[in-house]
Amino acid sequence: MNKKIKIPEPTIERLPLYFRCLSEFKKNDVAIVSSEEIAVHTGLKASQFRKDLSYFGEFGIQGLGYPVSHLLDRIAGIMQLNKKHRAALFGAGNLGAALLHYPGFANWGFKFTNVFDNDAEKVGQKLGELTIENIASLPRMLDVSIGILAVPANVADETSRLMVKCGIKAILNFTGTKLSLPEDIVIRNVDLTNELAILIYYLISRG
Amino acid sequence: MNKKIKIPEPTIERLPLYFRCLSEFKKNDVAIVSSEEIAVHTGLKASQFRKDLSYFGEFGIQGLGYPVSHLLDRIAGIMQLNKKHRAALFGAGNLGAALLHYPGFANWGFKFTNVFDNDAEKVGQKLGELTIENIASLPRMLDVSIGILAVPANVADETSRLMVKCGIKAILNFTGTKLSLPEDIVIRNVDLTNELAILIYYLISRG
Repeated sequence: MNKKIKIPEPTIERLPLYFRCLSEFKKNDVAIVSSEEIAVHTGLKASQFRKDLSYFGEFGIQGLGYPVSHLLDRIAGIMQLNKKHRAALFGAGNLGAALLHYPGFANWGFKFTNVFDNDAEKVGQKLGELTIENIASLPRMLDVSIGILAVPANVADETSRLMVKCGIKAILNFTGTKLSLPEDIVIRNVDLTNELAILIYYLISRG
Repeated sequence: MNKKIKIPEPTIERLPLYFRCLSEFKKNDVAIVSSEEIAVHTGLKASQFRKDLSYFGEFGIQGLGYPVSHLLDRIAGIMQLNKKHRAALFGAGNLGAALLHYPGFANWGFKFTNVFDNDAEKVGQKLGELTIENIASLPRMLDVSIGILAVPANVADETSRLMVKCGIKAILNFTGTKLSLPEDIVIRNVDLTNELAILIYYLISRG
């Protein structure tokens, strides 16, 4: 019964949206929502929401809707959002600094424990509450599984290999570079250019 | 025949991936690719690629594959990536500075023409090649349709309304705030927390 089934990636990608939407309903003391209400707030289809949830079990109450608190807890459980997660930041430039201060990260239980840079002028300085460490002091085992890669593209590859040597198992890659790492390393590439390209498509197709 | 059909949003969201992948093939002087090769390089399914393309016409050559250059031109045309696009940046903090220097934007034909902030210490200073302007000098009509919103969340709403008064029609919203704007304004919300949440899901489900 509990045999592990593979959840499609687009479903996983929508879970944070549902989580955020349900959090809003909870904040407004809504106890039960319909999939149609979720659809209106997320901009997704109600049928999509129902199908996505079906991968994780039965949540709806026939003829009533979905119990907000329960569903919120379940999604948080599935995504481990109810745990604290520690991450190390590689690259203390503008993007790194922006990520370190990004309010959403702290709100969702993420905490930066280390920040590294190769710039002698930055090393030893404070970034938020952390002191910037020299990347040349690595590799050593870091007590984190998650690394945020925000270095310039030309050092992305070597930095990512260094991260793996420090015990990092999952990398959020902002460099726009395709990383070549062992199969067991989880990589998520964030490319902000895509978002701008998509925005422009919709701008033009409406115009 | 040329009746406009609605392209599903996920298809639009995949076009930049195809574009990037095809650009790589072209750089390596590959003239024809199969949908299976595209699948290997993008991590998507070959059937998905073929279905996505079918919305835009016939591209494949039976038994051969897809002509790289032609397909690249078509996608660039669909997404208007072959045009120059001008954008104004609102918020000259770490995130704004990171976005202004984000190499991908310039590579894809995006150009920032203005940058605004409300911090008296920043106004008049240079950010890249631009001089930071006082946001209090707005509204006035700006010669751009695209605005990048990178201000703190607590001023996101008022800043977005100001952007609309300046003639901005499309907003890339990095504030994590849901904006309330007229229906005809195109909004694309970028939430980096989602990406980190998805990364953690895959990290844990592999472990």
